[in-house]
Amino acid sequence: MTYCVALKLNAGMVFLSDTRTNAGIDNISRVKKMFTFTGPDRALVMMTAGNLGITQAVISQLQEDIDRPDPAVPNLMSAPSMFAVAELVGRTMSNVQATYGPGLAARGEDSAATIIIGGERAGGKPRLFQIYAAGNFIEAHSDAPFFQIGEHKYGKPILDRVILPETPIEDAKIACLLSMDSTLRSNLSVGMPLDMAVLRTGALSIGEEKRIDENDENFRAFSEAWSQQLRDAFGVMREMKV
Amino acid sequence: MTYCVALKLNAGMVFLSDTRTNAGIDNISRVKKMFTFTGPDRALVMMTAGNLGITQAVISQLQEDIDRPDPAVPNLMSAPSMFAVAELVGRTMSNVQATYGPGLAARGEDSAATIIIGGERAGGKPRLFQIYAAGNFIEAHSDAPFFQIGEHKYGKPILDRVILPETPIEDAKIACLLSMDSTLRSNLSVGMPLDMAVLRTGALSIGEEKRIDENDENFRAFSEAWSQQLRDAFGVMREMKV
Repeated sequence: MTYCVALKLNAGMVFLSDTRTNAGIDNISRVKKMFTFTGPDRALVMMTAGNLGITQAVISQLQEDIDRPDPAVPNLMSAPSMFAVAELVGRTMSNVQATYGPGLAARGEDSAATIIIGGERAGGKPRLFQIYAAGNFIEAHSDAPFFQIGEHKYGKPILDRVILPETPIEDAKIACLLSMDSTLRSNLSVGMPLDMAVLRTGALSIGEEKRIDENDENFRAFSEAWSQQLRDAFGVMREMKV
Repeated sequence: MTYCVALKLNAGMVFLSDTRTNAGIDNISRVKKMFTFTGPDRALVMMTAGNLGITQAVISQLQEDIDRPDPAVPNLMSAPSMFAVAELVGRTMSNVQATYGPGLAARGEDSAATIIIGGERAGGKPRLFQIYAAGNFIEAHSDAPFFQIGEHKYGKPILDRVILPETPIEDAKIACLLSMDSTLRSNLSVGMPLDMAVLRTGALSIGEEKRIDENDENFRAFSEAWSQQLRDAFGVMREMKV
């Protein structure tokens, strides 16, 4: 499985993904699920969940279209708006599903896949989309300022409690890491290392992009501090009458 | 949907269930999912999730067998051990599935259902089982001292962090309520009121059985206190370097 979360805030967008992949529980490995695309007038971040063959084919096709541009066909670097970018990713997903979906279905395999894409281009606004296997998509708005794909349930309660459009970027990074920490602890199919990226509103570039691995002392201390905070909070709740 | 959680601790067992049921999002109502059975030598608590027709048929059949006992066939009150109780519930589930499963499948409906049953009888030990739709079952042990059925993911992280076999009953009740609170907030298909029951080890009776409704002042204060605790904990985490 996978866990990816993206927050769309007034100050910008924060993206966090794990890197665990498995084809059966006896075939576990590590794979990157976060992809960044930058050009002179735009910065995009994508994260993928679901059938790895499907999502890798989508990413590879999108990259091919950038590398060998056809002036008649928009690619991630030339699409005239973030909406056009989302349409392009959706169309590519739809084409890949048409190619491999029936063969997978015939073998009883699942071709389900989901993609989060967020970004901003010069002259536009930052926008965040979630693209489904059928190529259709939805957009994050202030009432629902985040998307999660993959194992989304364990890490949802903390986001529901603390994320607002006004949340600053640094707080949003903390919230994403706490959401991921809960998921890592409760589900073995989500695993370290983590990839994080930040797109600040108006910057048109990836403001921060880093990998947090198993040996990261800061993350380990962070995770232990959160456990201690929760135990302390639980200690307070023990005094409540119910 | 549903969320039910049962903890098996050295001091006893705690059971908590919600009461929301829905057949489509436009057909939401309230239904009891917790059932207690007591006799001179035993106390049992059952909780159900999944297809409501299936689980109600199982409960009704088990009650019928108690009300019109056949000396040749064990019922919940006469089964000679908790293992025999679990087998009986599993067999009843299996029979109900055989009756309605094919018809449901033919209509494309899901007959999936899960039951948690825990209890103790004189001369035995307290035992907690989770029964699947096929009638097979697993038992809670000290390495995995709790079962959850229905919408189990939102409320798992807190249990993973605080529940041990040594956890006292009062703490376990708090942990169940926190687990439920996170689920209620993140998933509309789980709803108040809540049913809670406690079986203390050796008591052979339901030590506590209560319904917590929407207007319960204590639960409301509890839920708000937990939100505040989490926000405070989040405030502390904002100071961490990551």
